[in-house]
Amino acid sequence: MDYTTMCPKYEAAVDVLGKKWTGLIIRVLLGGPKRFKDIKGQIADMSDKMLTDRMKELESQGIVKRTVFPEMPVRIEYELTEKGHNLQPVIESIQAWGENWM
Amino acid sequence: MDYTTMCPKYEAAVDVLGKKWTGLIIRVLLGGPKRFKDIKGQIADMSDKMLTDRMKELESQGIVKRTVFPEMPVRIEYELTEKGHNLQPVIESIQAWGENWM
Repeated sequence: MDYTTMCPKYEAAVDVLGKKWTGLIIRVLLGGPKRFKDIKGQIADMSDKMLTDRMKELESQGIVKRTVFPEMPVRIEYELTEKGHNLQPVIESIQAWGENWM
Repeated sequence: MDYTTMCPKYEAAVDVLGKKWTGLIIRVLLGGPKRFKDIKGQIADMSDKMLTDRMKELESQGIVKRTVFPEMPVRIEYELTEKGHNLQPVIESIQAWGENWM
């Protein structure tokens, strides 16, 4: 890997992943499709508005897919797309580093 | 890996890595010891104050080591500690994801 010059694709990836809560949300979704309250239940101190905003961003970036099930009452689930699932090595390497050094 | 509950060590790691500029600074330092201006030279749009603040944080977190060479004029270099070097798999997995998806 070339560390002598910054890579725009790396910068763009860091920009996505470096947003507050995003690293936590993606970790939760690696556990499979989740409803809003289930995501929120794993992440302390995150407001509804913040989670709503982040999920919209992640959806527009093609990382998360939102599915509406036309039941009564309506059920909405969030899951990772292929692009989102491909973040698993990132999340796992952060987890490994955290276990060693935090 | 257990995705059903959040891990405090993972949260702490994300808290360190998710700060703006940190992911870029660590990538630069994986290229070896650097002077302030060399780090800044690879990262567009980051102010001197922001880099100074981040380097102090990373030093206090034991991720970066600052060495003063008593020359004239004095020379200051920043390098990754073992804790910092151990972030290489994280940086490389972000790079790989960025190359595939950004």
